[in-house]
Amino acid sequence: MAKEIERKFLLRDLPAKVEETAQKYLIEQYYLIAEGKSEARVRLKEDLDSGKKEYFLTIKSGEGLQREETEIHINESQYIILSSSAIKGLKKWRLKTPNGFEIDIYNERLSHLSVVEMEFASEEEANAFVPPQWFGEEVTENAKYKNKNLAYELPHLDKLP
Amino acid sequence: MAKEIERKFLLRDLPAKVEETAQKYLIEQYYLIAEGKSEARVRLKEDLDSGKKEYFLTIKSGEGLQREETEIHINESQYIILSSSAIKGLKKWRLKTPNGFEIDIYNERLSHLSVVEMEFASEEEANAFVPPQWFGEEVTENAKYKNKNLAYELPHLDKLP
Repeated sequence: MAKEIERKFLLRDLPAKVEETAQKYLIEQYYLIAEGKSEARVRLKEDLDSGKKEYFLTIKSGEGLQREETEIHINESQYIILSSSAIKGLKKWRLKTPNGFEIDIYNERLSHLSVVEMEFASEEEANAFVPPQWFGEEVTENAKYKNKNLAYELPHLDKLP
Repeated sequence: MAKEIERKFLLRDLPAKVEETAQKYLIEQYYLIAEGKSEARVRLKEDLDSGKKEYFLTIKSGEGLQREETEIHINESQYIILSSSAIKGLKKWRLKTPNGFEIDIYNERLSHLSVVEMEFASEEEANAFVPPQWFGEEVTENAKYKNKNLAYELPHLDKLP
Protein backbone atom coordinates (compact mmCIF):
# COMPACT_ATOMS: atom_id res chain seq x y z
CA MET A 1 0.00 0.00 0.00
CA ALA A 2 1.30 3.43 -0.83
CA LYS A 3 -0.12 6.87 -1.27
CA GLU A 4 1.78 8.89 -3.84
CA ILE A 5 2.10 12.66 -3.97
CA GLU A 6 3.69 13.54 -7.29
CA ARG A 7 4.03 16.37 -9.75
CA LYS A 8 4.76 15.77 -13.43
CA PHE A 9 6.11 18.16 -16.08
CA LEU A 10 7.00 17.98 -19.72
CA LEU A 11 10.75 18.12 -20.25
CA ARG A 12 11.87 21.31 -22.00
CA ASP A 13 15.54 20.43 -22.10
CA LEU A 14 17.87 17.79 -20.66
CA PRO A 15 21.02 19.43 -19.27
CA ALA A 16 24.16 17.37 -19.98
CA LYS A 17 25.12 17.40 -16.30
CA VAL A 18 21.75 15.97 -15.29
CA GLU A 19 22.08 13.21 -17.88
CA GLU A 20 25.64 12.33 -16.82
CA THR A 21 24.88 11.98 -13.14
CA ALA A 22 21.62 10.03 -13.49
CA GLN A 23 21.10 6.32 -13.08
CA LYS A 24 19.74 4.92 -16.35
CA TYR A 25 17.12 2.24 -16.76
CA LEU A 26 15.18 0.68 -19.59
CA ILE A 27 11.57 0.05 -18.61
CA GLU A 28 9.06 -2.16 -20.42
CA GLN A 29 5.61 -2.32 -18.97
CA TYR A 30 2.54 -4.27 -19.94
CA TYR A 31 -1.03 -3.73 -18.81
CA LEU A 32 -3.26 -6.71 -18.09
CA ILE A 33 -6.04 -4.65 -16.58
CA ALA A 34 -6.64 -0.93 -17.08
CA GLU A 35 -10.30 -0.38 -16.27
CA GLY A 36 -11.63 2.56 -14.31
CA LYS A 37 -9.51 2.92 -11.18
CA SER A 38 -8.18 -0.61 -11.45
CA GLU A 39 -4.85 -1.53 -12.94
CA ALA A 40 -2.73 -4.67 -13.11
CA ARG A 41 0.64 -4.15 -14.70
CA VAL A 42 3.98 -5.94 -15.03
CA ARG A 43 7.25 -4.14 -15.47
CA LEU A 44 10.78 -5.07 -16.51
CA LYS A 45 13.33 -2.60 -15.17
CA GLU A 46 16.84 -3.05 -16.52
CA ASP A 47 19.70 -1.11 -14.93
CA LEU A 48 21.67 0.02 -17.97
CA ASP A 49 24.91 0.31 -15.99
CA SER A 50 24.96 -3.06 -14.23
CA GLY A 51 22.68 -4.92 -16.66
CA LYS A 52 20.63 -6.15 -13.69
CA LYS A 53 17.01 -6.94 -14.56
CA GLU A 54 14.17 -6.75 -12.09
CA TYR A 55 10.56 -7.71 -12.66
CA PHE A 56 7.53 -6.34 -10.85
CA LEU A 57 3.81 -6.85 -10.65
CA THR A 58 1.79 -3.82 -9.57
CA ILE A 59 -1.87 -3.89 -8.74
CA LYS A 60 -3.85 -0.72 -8.18
CA SER A 61 -7.40 -0.87 -7.00
CA GLY A 62 -9.77 1.75 -5.87
CA GLU A 63 -13.25 2.25 -4.59
CA GLY A 64 -14.37 5.81 -3.91
CA LEU A 65 -11.62 7.75 -2.20
CA GLN A 66 -9.72 4.63 -1.19
CA ARG A 67 -6.95 3.80 -3.59
CA GLU A 68 -4.36 1.15 -3.03
CA GLU A 69 -1.20 0.18 -4.80
CA THR A 70 0.56 -3.09 -4.15
CA GLU A 71 3.84 -4.07 -5.77
CA ILE A 72 5.69 -7.37 -5.60
CA HIS A 73 8.84 -8.71 -7.17
CA ILE A 74 8.16 -11.46 -9.70
CA ASN A 75 10.60 -13.68 -11.55
CA GLU A 76 11.36 -13.70 -15.26
CA SER A 77 9.08 -16.59 -16.15
CA GLN A 78 6.14 -15.09 -14.26
CA TYR A 79 6.83 -11.88 -16.16
CA ILE A 80 6.86 -13.64 -19.52
CA ILE A 81 3.54 -15.40 -18.92
CA LEU A 82 1.79 -12.29 -17.61
CA SER A 83 3.15 -9.93 -20.27
CA SER A 84 2.14 -12.26 -23.07
CA SER A 85 -1.53 -11.75 -22.24
CA ALA A 86 -1.35 -8.00 -21.89
CA ILE A 87 -3.68 -5.73 -23.81
CA LYS A 88 -1.22 -2.89 -24.19
CA GLY A 89 2.24 -1.76 -23.21
CA LEU A 90 4.97 0.79 -23.53
CA LYS A 91 8.71 1.15 -23.46
CA LYS A 92 10.67 4.02 -22.00
CA TRP A 93 14.07 5.00 -20.70
CA ARG A 94 14.24 6.35 -17.19
CA LEU A 95 16.92 8.62 -15.77
CA LYS A 96 16.90 8.93 -12.02
CA THR A 97 18.83 11.93 -10.76
CA PRO A 98 20.65 12.06 -7.40
CA ASN A 99 18.05 14.51 -6.08
CA GLY A 100 15.16 12.24 -7.00
CA PHE A 101 13.85 13.56 -10.33
CA GLU A 102 12.59 10.78 -12.56
CA ILE A 103 12.91 11.61 -16.24
CA ASP A 104 11.01 9.29 -18.58
CA ILE A 105 11.84 9.31 -22.27
CA TYR A 106 9.39 7.28 -24.30
CA ASN A 107 10.35 5.44 -27.46
CA GLU A 108 9.63 6.45 -31.05
CA ARG A 109 6.12 4.95 -30.88
CA LEU A 110 5.38 7.87 -28.56
CA SER A 111 7.43 10.40 -30.54
CA HIS A 112 10.15 10.35 -27.90
CA LEU A 113 7.91 12.22 -25.47
CA SER A 114 9.86 13.21 -22.35
CA VAL A 115 8.43 13.94 -18.94
CA VAL A 116 9.93 14.49 -15.52
CA GLU A 117 8.31 13.48 -12.28
CA MET A 118 9.07 14.24 -8.67
CA GLU A 119 7.64 12.53 -5.62
CA PHE A 120 7.03 14.39 -2.36
CA ALA A 121 6.56 13.41 1.26
CA SER A 122 3.65 15.80 1.82
CA GLU A 123 1.28 18.10 -0.05
CA GLU A 124 2.97 21.13 1.53
CA GLU A 125 6.30 20.02 0.11
CA ALA A 126 4.72 19.41 -3.29
CA ASN A 127 3.16 22.88 -3.36
CA ALA A 128 6.42 24.54 -2.29
CA PHE A 129 8.43 22.93 -5.09
CA VAL A 130 9.81 25.39 -7.67
CA PRO A 131 10.67 23.59 -10.92
CA PRO A 132 14.06 24.35 -12.52
CA GLN A 133 14.29 26.17 -15.86
CA TRP A 134 14.68 22.96 -17.85
CA PHE A 135 11.22 21.72 -16.80
CA GLY A 136 8.37 22.55 -19.18
CA GLU A 137 4.59 22.72 -18.79
CA GLU A 138 3.12 20.98 -15.74
CA VAL A 139 0.93 17.97 -16.67
CA THR A 140 0.24 16.51 -13.22
CA GLU A 141 -3.53 16.65 -13.72
CA ASN A 142 -3.51 15.80 -17.42
CA ALA A 143 -4.82 12.25 -17.87
CA LYS A 144 -3.28 12.09 -21.35
CA TYR A 145 0.16 11.70 -19.79
CA LYS A 146 -0.72 8.83 -17.48
CA ASN A 147 1.28 5.77 -18.48
CA LYS A 148 -1.80 3.62 -18.89
CA ASN A 149 -3.16 6.15 -21.39
CA LEU A 150 0.15 6.42 -23.24
CA ALA A 151 0.42 2.65 -23.59
CA TYR A 152 -0.35 1.39 -27.07
CA GLU A 153 -2.28 -1.68 -28.10
CA LEU A 154 -0.26 -4.77 -28.88
CA PRO A 155 -0.73 -7.67 -31.19
CA HIS A 156 -0.79 -10.54 -28.72
CA LEU A 157 2.44 -12.33 -27.89
CA ASP A 158 4.41 -9.64 -29.62
CA LYS A 159 7.23 -7.79 -27.99
CA LEU A 160 7.09 -4.04 -27.61
CA PRO A 161 8.36 -2.14 -30.61
CA MET B 1 -5.60 -17.73 -21.86
CA ALA B 2 -8.51 -20.07 -21.53
CA LYS B 3 -12.13 -20.16 -22.53
CA GLU B 4 -14.28 -21.98 -20.02
CA ILE B 5 -17.53 -23.75 -20.73
CA GLU B 6 -19.08 -24.65 -17.40
CA ARG B 7 -22.39 -25.47 -15.79
CA LYS B 8 -23.04 -24.88 -12.11
CA PHE B 9 -25.74 -26.33 -9.85
CA LEU B 10 -26.71 -26.09 -6.22
CA LEU B 11 -25.90 -29.28 -4.34
CA ARG B 12 -29.02 -31.10 -3.16
CA ASP B 13 -27.19 -33.91 -1.43
CA LEU B 14 -23.64 -35.23 -1.13
CA PRO B 15 -23.64 -39.02 -1.56
CA ALA B 16 -21.16 -40.72 0.81
CA LYS B 17 -19.51 -42.56 -2.10
CA VAL B 18 -18.87 -39.28 -3.93
CA GLU B 19 -17.32 -37.76 -0.82
CA GLU B 20 -15.10 -40.78 -0.16
CA THR B 21 -13.61 -40.94 -3.63
CA ALA B 22 -13.03 -37.20 -4.07
CA GLN B 23 -9.75 -35.35 -3.69
CA LYS B 24 -10.18 -32.71 -0.98
CA TYR B 25 -8.77 -29.20 -0.95
CA LEU B 26 -9.06 -26.13 1.21
CA ILE B 27 -9.21 -22.97 -0.89
CA GLU B 28 -8.73 -19.40 0.30
CA GLN B 29 -9.05 -16.70 -2.26
CA TYR B 30 -8.62 -12.97 -2.09
CA TYR B 31 -9.72 -10.36 -4.60
CA LEU B 32 -7.51 -7.37 -5.33
CA ILE B 33 -9.56 -6.19 -8.27
CA ALA B 34 -13.18 -7.07 -9.02
CA GLU B 35 -14.44 -4.31 -11.27
CA GLY B 36 -16.64 -4.86 -14.29
CA LYS B 37 -15.12 -7.66 -16.35
CA SER B 38 -11.74 -7.29 -14.68
CA GLU B 39 -10.53 -9.46 -11.87
CA ALA B 40 -7.22 -9.98 -10.06
CA ARG B 41 -7.27 -12.72 -7.49
CA VAL B 42 -4.85 -14.82 -5.47
CA ARG B 43 -5.63 -18.31 -4.28
CA LEU B 44 -4.17 -20.72 -1.75
CA LYS B 45 -5.07 -24.32 -2.58
CA GLU B 46 -4.15 -26.86 0.07
CA ASP B 47 -4.38 -30.54 -0.74
CA LEU B 48 -5.94 -31.94 2.44
CA ASP B 49 -4.48 -35.41 1.87
CA SER B 50 -0.84 -34.53 1.18
CA GLY B 51 -0.80 -31.14 2.94
CA LYS B 52 0.78 -29.64 -0.17
CA LYS B 53 0.06 -25.94 -0.59
CA GLU B 54 0.01 -24.16 -3.94
CA TYR B 55 -0.44 -20.46 -4.57
CA PHE B 56 -1.85 -18.85 -7.69
CA LEU B 57 -2.43 -15.43 -9.17
CA THR B 58 -5.26 -15.19 -11.68
CA ILE B 59 -5.97 -12.18 -13.82
CA LYS B 60 -9.12 -11.89 -15.90
CA SER B 61 -9.60 -9.04 -18.25
CA GLY B 62 -12.18 -8.34 -20.84
CA GLU B 63 -13.18 -5.85 -23.45
CA GLY B 64 -16.37 -6.50 -25.37
CA LEU B 65 -16.57 -10.15 -26.34
CA GLN B 66 -12.89 -10.77 -25.71
CA ARG B 67 -12.24 -12.20 -22.30
CA GLU B 68 -8.93 -13.54 -21.14
CA GLU B 69 -7.83 -15.47 -18.12
CA THR B 70 -4.18 -15.83 -17.16
CA GLU B 71 -2.97 -17.86 -14.22
CA ILE B 72 0.52 -18.18 -12.78
CA HIS B 73 2.02 -19.97 -9.83
CA ILE B 74 3.25 -17.60 -7.14
CA ASN B 75 5.22 -18.33 -3.98
CA GLU B 76 4.05 -18.03 -0.39
CA SER B 77 5.57 -14.60 0.26
CA GLN B 78 4.10 -13.15 -2.93
CA TYR B 79 0.75 -14.57 -1.81
CA ILE B 80 1.03 -13.00 1.63
CA ILE B 81 1.81 -9.53 0.28
CA LEU B 82 -0.91 -9.61 -2.36
CA SER B 83 -3.60 -11.08 -0.11
CA SER B 84 -2.93 -8.51 2.60
CA SER B 85 -4.15 -5.72 0.33
CA ALA B 86 -7.25 -7.52 -0.89
CA ILE B 87 -10.65 -5.92 -0.64
CA LYS B 88 -12.57 -9.13 -0.11
CA GLY B 89 -12.16 -12.86 0.06
CA LEU B 90 -13.71 -16.23 0.74
CA LYS B 91 -12.88 -19.67 2.02
CA LYS B 92 -14.24 -22.93 0.77
CA TRP B 93 -13.60 -26.64 0.67
CA ARG B 94 -13.40 -28.27 -2.72
CA LEU B 95 -14.05 -31.91 -3.52
CA LYS B 96 -12.91 -33.02 -6.94
CA THR B 97 -14.49 -36.27 -8.06
CA PRO B 98 -12.78 -38.79 -10.36
CA ASN B 99 -15.20 -37.88 -13.17
CA GLY B 100 -14.42 -34.17 -12.89
CA PHE B 101 -17.22 -32.70 -10.77
CA GLU B 102 -15.99 -29.88 -8.57
CA ILE B 103 -18.02 -29.53 -5.40
CA ASP B 104 -17.46 -26.31 -3.48
CA ILE B 105 -18.64 -26.07 0.12
CA TYR B 106 -18.36 -22.55 1.47
CA ASN B 107 -17.67 -21.81 5.13
CA GLU B 108 -20.12 -20.65 7.80
CA ARG B 109 -19.80 -17.03 6.66
CA LEU B 110 -21.68 -18.17 3.57
CA SER B 111 -24.03 -20.50 5.48
CA HIS B 112 -22.18 -23.55 4.19
CA LEU B 113 -23.57 -22.98 0.70
CA SER B 114 -22.69 -25.91 -1.56
CA VAL B 115 -22.45 -25.87 -5.33
CA VAL B 116 -21.20 -28.31 -7.92
CA GLU B 117 -19.56 -27.33 -11.16
CA MET B 118 -18.63 -29.25 -14.27
CA GLU B 119 -16.41 -28.11 -17.11
CA PHE B 120 -16.99 -29.20 -20.70
CA ALA B 121 -14.89 -29.32 -23.86
CA SER B 122 -17.67 -27.93 -26.06
CA GLU B 123 -21.10 -26.32 -25.90
CA GLU B 124 -22.64 -29.48 -27.42
CA GLU B 125 -21.20 -31.54 -24.58
CA ALA B 126 -22.43 -29.00 -22.02
CA ASN B 127 -25.95 -29.06 -23.43
CA ALA B 128 -26.03 -32.87 -23.54
CA PHE B 129 -25.07 -33.23 -19.87
CA VAL B 130 -27.79 -34.76 -17.69
CA PRO B 131 -27.19 -33.91 -14.01
CA PRO B 132 -27.45 -36.76 -11.48
CA GLN B 133 -30.23 -36.85 -8.87
CA TRP B 134 -28.06 -35.31 -6.14
CA PHE B 135 -27.63 -32.07 -8.12
CA GLY B 136 -30.12 -29.30 -7.31
CA GLU B 137 -31.23 -26.19 -9.16
CA GLU B 138 -28.98 -24.99 -12.00
CA VAL B 139 -27.37 -21.60 -11.26
CA THR B 140 -24.98 -21.28 -14.22
CA GLU B 141 -26.42 -17.93 -15.27
CA ASN B 142 -27.07 -16.62 -11.76
CA ALA B 143 -24.51 -13.91 -10.98
CA LYS B 144 -25.23 -14.25 -7.25
CA TYR B 145 -23.26 -17.50 -7.20
CA LYS B 146 -20.14 -16.16 -8.87
CA ASN B 147 -17.24 -16.37 -6.43
CA LYS B 148 -16.43 -12.69 -6.70
CA ASN B 149 -20.01 -11.89 -5.66
CA LEU B 150 -19.96 -14.41 -2.81
CA ALA B 151 -16.71 -13.00 -1.43
CA TYR B 152 -17.16 -10.90 1.69
CA GLU B 153 -15.44 -7.69 2.63
CA LEU B 154 -12.45 -7.96 4.90
CA PRO B 155 -10.94 -5.73 7.50
CA HIS B 156 -7.50 -5.15 6.00
CA LEU B 157 -4.64 -7.45 6.94
CA ASP B 158 -7.04 -9.87 8.56
CA LYS B 159 -7.16 -13.48 7.74
CA LEU B 160 -10.34 -15.01 6.44
CA PRO B 161 -12.78 -16.10 9.12
